Amino acid sequence: MRIDLNSDLGEGFGRWELGDDGALLSIVTSANVACGFHAGDPSVLRRTTADAAARGVAVGAHVGYRDLAGFGRRFIDVPPEDLTADVLYQMGALSAFTRLAGDRIRYVKPHGALYNTIVHHEGQAAAVVEAVRAFDPAMPVLGLPGSRFLSLAGEAGLPVHREAFADRAYTPEGTLVSRHEAGAVLHDPGEIAERCLRIARGEPVTAVDGTEILIEADSLCVHGDSPGAVAIARAVADRLRAEGVTPAPFAP
Amino acid sequence: MRIDLNSDLGEGFGRWELGDDGALLSIVTSANVACGFHAGDPSVLRRTTADAAARGVAVGAHVGYRDLAGFGRRFIDVPPEDLTADVLYQMGALSAFTRLAGDRIRYVKPHGALYNTIVHHEGQAAAVVEAVRAFDPAMPVLGLPGSRFLSLAGEAGLPVHREAFADRAYTPEGTLVSRHEAGAVLHDPGEIAERCLRIARGEPVTAVDGTEILIEADSLCVHGDSPGAVAIARAVADRLRAEGVTPAPFAP
Amino acid sequence: MRIDLNSDLGEGFGRWELGDDGALLSIVTSANVACGFHAGDPSVLRRTTADAAARGVAVGAHVGYRDLAGFGRRFIDVPPEDLTADVLYQMGALSAFTRLAGDRIRYVKPHGALYNTIVHHEGQAAAVVEAVRAFDPAMPVLGLPGSRFLSLAGEAGLPVHREAFADRAYTPEGTLVSRHEAGAVLHDPGEIAERCLRIARGEPVTAVDGTEILIEADSLCVHGDSPGAVAIARAVADRLRAEGVTPAPFAP
Amino acid sequence: MRIDLNSDLGEGFGRWELGDDGALLSIVTSANVACGFHAGDPSVLRRTTADAAARGVAVGAHVGYRDLAGFGRRFIDVPPEDLTADVLYQMGALSAFTRLAGDRIRYVKPHGALYNTIVHHEGQAAAVVEAVRAFDPAMPVLGLPGSRFLSLAGEAGLPVHREAFADRAYTPEGTLVSRHEAGAVLHDPGEIAERCLRIARGEPVTAVDGTEILIEADSLCVHGDSPGAVAIARAVADRLRAEGVTPAPFAP
Repeated sequence: MRIDLNSDLGEGFGRWELGDDGALLSIVTSANVACGFHAGDPSVLRRTTADAAARGVAVGAHVGYRDLAGFGRRFIDVPPEDLTADVLYQMGALSAFTRLAGDRIRYVKPHGALYNTIVHHEGQAAAVVEAVRAFDPAMPVLGLPGSRFLSLAGEAGLPVHREAFADRAYTPEGTLVSRHEAGAVLHDPGEIAERCLRIARGEPVTAVDGTEILIEADSLCVHGDSPGAVAIARAVADRLRAEGVTPAPFAP
Repeated sequence: MRIDLNSDLGEGFGRWELGDDGALLSIVTSANVACGFHAGDPSVLRRTTADAAARGVAVGAHVGYRDLAGFGRRFIDVPPEDLTADVLYQMGALSAFTRLAGDRIRYVKPHGALYNTIVHHEGQAAAVVEAVRAFDPAMPVLGLPGSRFLSLAGEAGLPVHREAFADRAYTPEGTLVSRHEAGAVLHDPGEIAERCLRIARGEPVTAVDGTEILIEADSLCVHGDSPGAVAIARAVADRLRAEGVTPAPFAP
Repeated sequence: MRIDLNSDLGEGFGRWELGDDGALLSIVTSANVACGFHAGDPSVLRRTTADAAARGVAVGAHVGYRDLAGFGRRFIDVPPEDLTADVLYQMGALSAFTRLAGDRIRYVKPHGALYNTIVHHEGQAAAVVEAVRAFDPAMPVLGLPGSRFLSLAGEAGLPVHREAFADRAYTPEGTLVSRHEAGAVLHDPGEIAERCLRIARGEPVTAVDGTEILIEADSLCVHGDSPGAVAIARAVADRLRAEGVTPAPFAP
Repeated sequence: MRIDLNSDLGEGFGRWELGDDGALLSIVTSANVACGFHAGDPSVLRRTTADAAARGVAVGAHVGYRDLAGFGRRFIDVPPEDLTADVLYQMGALSAFTRLAGDRIRYVKPHGALYNTIVHHEGQAAAVVEAVRAFDPAMPVLGLPGSRFLSLAGEAGLPVHREAFADRAYTPEGTLVSRHEAGAVLHDPGEIAERCLRIARGEPVTAVDGTEILIEADSLCVHGDSPGAVAIARAVADRLRAEGVTPAPFAP
């Protein structure tokens, strides 16, 4: 039994560092690498793709809005045709470094506000799909189950992969509990690892209201932007392995 | 007999336009396309590469310093390893659009202050060469004859092409007369076209001091950032054709 | 009888120019000067404020979203507390140049998508008002009649001024006809000048459905980003003067 | 007996944090606050100026090159007239926040590569002086003793203050040992504190070659970008106080 573990990497910019990429690369199997629009200067891209390749971690293009000041976390009403160009630009830029590392972009996962927006925003979801397909019609995408993005990507023939969030509570309908609500984020490494194991095995987990729900996922998203987050990610990976679930890239 | 005509294109950014790309694409055979660091947003890159491909104009990566406010015309003391990454990033970004246009990057020509700096700056010249070679060890480069950039590129095995400037006066040594000196820039379309014809034919032209010099060039650089500049570019192309010299890309 | 004529100025950035500021400064009485976030580098700010002061044109802070690539025309979901800081930053920056010109910021007019957003977006409207009041509790603001921005500004004690658009059609309710609809933009200089005169005199103008409506305005917005636009602006100013209406700043 | 302790603060940007501003504000008496060109988004400026004012720490404008990617540490060949505008822009922006905090900019200290450049670069040194004087002809500046910047500032009538570096070795001539040389940076808190005390008292310190030199300084620069750096800064302040030297702003 296998499941992918993905995390955001390469989120520094110039003098500024963020997260413990070294630790994460020893844990995850897929790295969502920032492409320069919300984080990641070219030297960070080069270093991150080289390190990922050296460890056999699959590199995904973590494309975002052009917004360094907002870290890509603020919705921008970019006209779809411009958004398509923005995504293509970022994928092209990253591809120069994956190629240098003897590899290639293995998948695309939108970042931050773009990720959230294309759950429902038809125009921007289609724009991202168009960009990915224009770059490579066989490029896998990673996103939220039930999102317009994954639906449109599937219709466009792109291989579609679903992710679950290791440390987030779910509603009975299988969507994420808003971060503005109490209990939205889980903190206990043991509990989080247990949930991840259940998701990996296709077993139900407990939703925020106590009901049991099934969360189908090809990849589990873990974070690494604090020491605690890295510890959780490691706990998840260790527990999976201990129970016979091998972390492995969904897009090898 | 053939010679290339190159010009800078795709130098708009967002709301701002610059130059008459439509007119230039009907004249030149090689387009130095800005890659987003000194000019050129992703939508401009997409449009420019598509238009160039549709007209059979060869697309070159016009890589520059990260400096929108300075249009890439100000020297920046970028450490060589960062500069290599910056150039790779720009080439990768542009390549997404040339591929979308059914084409690829045909050559690299550094822009503005980077172009001028690597005439003599060993570290930055080597950094650009390393980037180009890492991207594609068979990628042609276009630059100033006698520059460190072309020397190092040649040593690295990159196909090297020399350019001459249609509207610039030359010293007896074959270097450009500084723009700060009188007579540095030529304005008469007929005179400019005549000089270009002589360069294309391998005939000597008159240096600023009246002596005759040979300028060996594979490409003639023409400008298009004013109505007068476009008229000069057209005069050059017309004169060449009238005299049996066919404008054709050096990197077809 | 007096009315203000305002226009957007200082919208270049680095190598890129936009609009005919020289012509506009001989026509308008208030200049909405871009502050660097959507347009306007520091040298442009210095030049524009100096030229405006030399001509007795009142300088307003044309504050916008941080979005050079989108020219401030794309909504960005900036958290209100950050937006307040962004507006303060821009006003402070501009104030260094108005002071250098022996003057001061006379008013604030939000730009582009920010202008449109705070017609209805409570959080961002309040954020802009808070910034203006924090900068100077007696600072006039210019905006759309009926907007949340002007309402909140009035409640906060800021002097409130309403603007009308010289070249736009109005609905019977006195709001602007969407640019997506036919007839939204007027092009005939004579007709536009006539409407402006009627607005200045407090006389009704014809709405898009043929009914007569009153548009109360302290300032008429004219554009200058094309030769035709400048001609229209001049026609408006000439007609007003010919009929005894003196163009004069609302915030002298 | 008194001496100033200065440090760089407000060097975060958006999602990225840098240094322990809270700890530093309890130690230093002058805060060099980044103004947005090399670091410091508007919300950071607001927070930093408010915190500094609340603690009675003097705020200086830490003006730099427009270079987020390089953190202002790369020389940029900005034409002097543009540099003057860049500095004015940054000072104006910061002043909106110092005023909001009930305070004002107390001094100007150039940052990074700009600081180093105007030690000798006549054109850029004069450009910075012109900007400071245009902003306020009585504005103090802080810089390197013997620099062209301080000389020109003095000639222009600006109050001039000299700084010494707590953790740097000096040559027998009183200049800084290059960071590229061994022993350029001191690490022992006790030794550093002892040197600072001697500088504060006007006593000689030992240069890198063992000779004794006098370093005249109105302010000691301490760093805070690592836990070790903060500990050193605290050791310096504690030692000074223990020996009867009161840390106090040079520009109160």
